[in-house]
Amino acid sequence: MRKLSLFIATSLDGYIAKPNDDLSFLKLVEKEDEDYGYAEFIAIVDTIIIGRKTFEYVQREIGISHYDNGERDVYVVTSTERPRLGRIQFYNGDIARLVENLKIAEGKGIYCDGGADLINELLKNDLIDELVISVVPVLLGNGTRLFKDTRPEQMLEFVSVKTFETGLVQLKYQRKK
Amino acid sequence: MRKLSLFIATSLDGYIAKPNDDLSFLKLVEKEDEDYGYAEFIAIVDTIIIGRKTFEYVQREIGISHYDNGERDVYVVTSTERPRLGRIQFYNGDIARLVENLKIAEGKGIYCDGGADLINELLKNDLIDELVISVVPVLLGNGTRLFKDTRPEQMLEFVSVKTFETGLVQLKYQRKK
Repeated sequence: MRKLSLFIATSLDGYIAKPNDDLSFLKLVEKEDEDYGYAEFIAIVDTIIIGRKTFEYVQREIGISHYDNGERDVYVVTSTERPRLGRIQFYNGDIARLVENLKIAEGKGIYCDGGADLINELLKNDLIDELVISVVPVLLGNGTRLFKDTRPEQMLEFVSVKTFETGLVQLKYQRKK
Repeated sequence: MRKLSLFIATSLDGYIAKPNDDLSFLKLVEKEDEDYGYAEFIAIVDTIIIGRKTFEYVQREIGISHYDNGERDVYVVTSTERPRLGRIQFYNGDIARLVENLKIAEGKGIYCDGGADLINELLKNDLIDELVISVVPVLLGNGTRLFKDTRPEQMLEFVSVKTFETGLVQLKYQRKK
């Protein structure tokens, strides 16, 4: 079975963005030649699932090539039908069904790149196998929470922690079987 | 200046209790002869600040001797006046003023033992100097959040991380000067 992973940065108080999708807190831990393990992580991923708003944010701020480099299938979860763009396809069906089908198919890792709505929908369906959470040393005080209220309880197994010079702490957990 | 510290356990999704003050998730990491550094921490504390609801919870569930062992001053923050109980006094004035006065007085460390309302009031006033957060490997999905919305942004300095056999990860930060 393929594994679905989160790889995401949050403030110590649990926000992945300040209000208005402000991601400037990530600059606090930006450092030349330090990608916090992203390249290593993404090398074993061949499928990305993202929410529509996150996709449009990345499309606007970074460009579609961030996802569509020809190496990966990208599923954008949305409520409206849209034509495929290269390996990027828009999916407006049942999320659990999509993920379950992806997991039993052949392939490498599956990566959910947010946003919070999609992550919480996946958690509600107990579909996330691994969480890699990078804690940025700041209290943001307000914004978009990584974890929303009203999900089922879920036991985790602690895997590892890595610390970095910038004060970032990367916690890794897997779903307890 | 004396230091005000938090020393608290939370789930990975940021809850310090499930609904109805249910602390049973702490049992997941209970282990004989393992106090996760509490004895060492409390040994350098001579003053405790707690919210009224937390005080009454401890009074009911553990007994008042948990706080009043004759070794520490205890301030219970409440909105109503109540007579002193040994070294436990009830304080219904301005919290920032209380903490500022305690910090400039002679003494050892000051420890805030919750609840979330008091912690967030202290954070709003930038009065917490050190945070020791023990992350229990579970997603609770709902309950009382350690960090509430609508606080000012606050920069932190990462101090250390300790891991334990039970999967508990203890993160230590201090306020950035």
